Amino acid sequence: MSEIKVVTNILKANDELNAVNRKRLDEKAIYVINLMSSPGSGKTSILEKMISRLKDDIKIAVIEGDLYTTIDAQRIEAQGVPVVQINTGGACHLDAYMIKDAIDGIDLDGIELLIVENVGNLVCPAEFEIGEDIKITVLSTTEGNDKPLKYPLAFEKSKAVILNKIDLIEHTNFDKQKFYDDVRSINDKAVFFETSCTKDLGLDGLCEWIENKVKEKQSSKI
Amino acid sequence: MSEIKVVTNILKANDELNAVNRKRLDEKAIYVINLMSSPGSGKTSILEKMISRLKDDIKIAVIEGDLYTTIDAQRIEAQGVPVVQINTGGACHLDAYMIKDAIDGIDLDGIELLIVENVGNLVCPAEFEIGEDIKITVLSTTEGNDKPLKYPLAFEKSKAVILNKIDLIEHTNFDKQKFYDDVRSINDKAVFFETSCTKDLGLDGLCEWIENKVKEKQSSKI
Repeated sequence: MSEIKVVTNILKANDELNAVNRKRLDEKAIYVINLMSSPGSGKTSILEKMISRLKDDIKIAVIEGDLYTTIDAQRIEAQGVPVVQINTGGACHLDAYMIKDAIDGIDLDGIELLIVENVGNLVCPAEFEIGEDIKITVLSTTEGNDKPLKYPLAFEKSKAVILNKIDLIEHTNFDKQKFYDDVRSINDKAVFFETSCTKDLGLDGLCEWIENKVKEKQSSKI
Repeated sequence: MSEIKVVTNILKANDELNAVNRKRLDEKAIYVINLMSSPGSGKTSILEKMISRLKDDIKIAVIEGDLYTTIDAQRIEAQGVPVVQINTGGACHLDAYMIKDAIDGIDLDGIELLIVENVGNLVCPAEFEIGEDIKITVLSTTEGNDKPLKYPLAFEKSKAVILNKIDLIEHTNFDKQKFYDDVRSINDKAVFFETSCTKDLGLDGLCEWIENKVKEKQSSKI
């Protein structure tokens, strides 16, 4: 049973560093989003769309989590915002320690919104707070409506849930009512967005919601 | 650095139990498949199709890995084959210890093919051998062709790679040539199958390949 103790210690150490990161980011009134999903749900495409809509109004930086590659970081860099790449070397989630290091590479006085794209994994990332204000979970319609009940923690901990690839829903058996009911049964406060990056749907509403959150936090700055 | 030591110990303990499982299953000449993918790639749908095609010729049992629910196990049970449910209680992969326990619940003299549907996760399951003859990784076209390079271990360790939801490829920007080239760069021996469960495509070839593997192992039985 020694693993259980180890897991507890790892989570405790993570909590302490989460608090350190929070303090540092709160002092600058930087709004922080932890973006989570399965591989291939469309996190990076949504991020590209968000940045292109928001970057003229809000100063944005991105931390990209990936096992080995810089594929996503290159896509974000092309949007003209600062990016820090974290390669986990095979580890299945980002933790507060990795984020602490990554923040050292960012000019915190120059940004208002920090978006962390987590490793593509609907299980492990949800267990680790990294210094974020909110978590957002993305699910794509092609993954099936049964995912909230099968992977509840990510949906339970998210302030917003994005149903992406909404343009493909007609080619699937995705039951939208069941999906909403299931998320509501886990998390009765989540805000929902339906988006398609291919067809450019639903992204204005999502960006407006995020912009308001950022302005709200910025206005708390002394 | 204590975590690294712990991980090593966990993997070593897993290797030992993997060998125990292998011995037990080899003695009965049972062919074992460890089926892996992201959430929502279509593992369970492929399994349903495989069982309905193969169950008259081969005696099959299934072990279903899920965090909390029995949604998939119920779908497989409806196909009329024995199913053992493993609920990991939040853990992100199956390990050899869980499989050892699950095997106790199966009449090994009554089966020739054991299929283990792993937890939906393209990262962690690939690290743990559980007693299988082969791993098969499923990727769906809607997840994007960049996944083999981003999550290489599952593709590297798989004897077969299934590209599922092939009927939806026309609605995506999935680059099939790039996908095949990338998998080949990691694993030059993998066999490929393209399938669609909705349109019932490519499943005959997949099932024929599996049936041959099962017969081959069975013929080694003394």
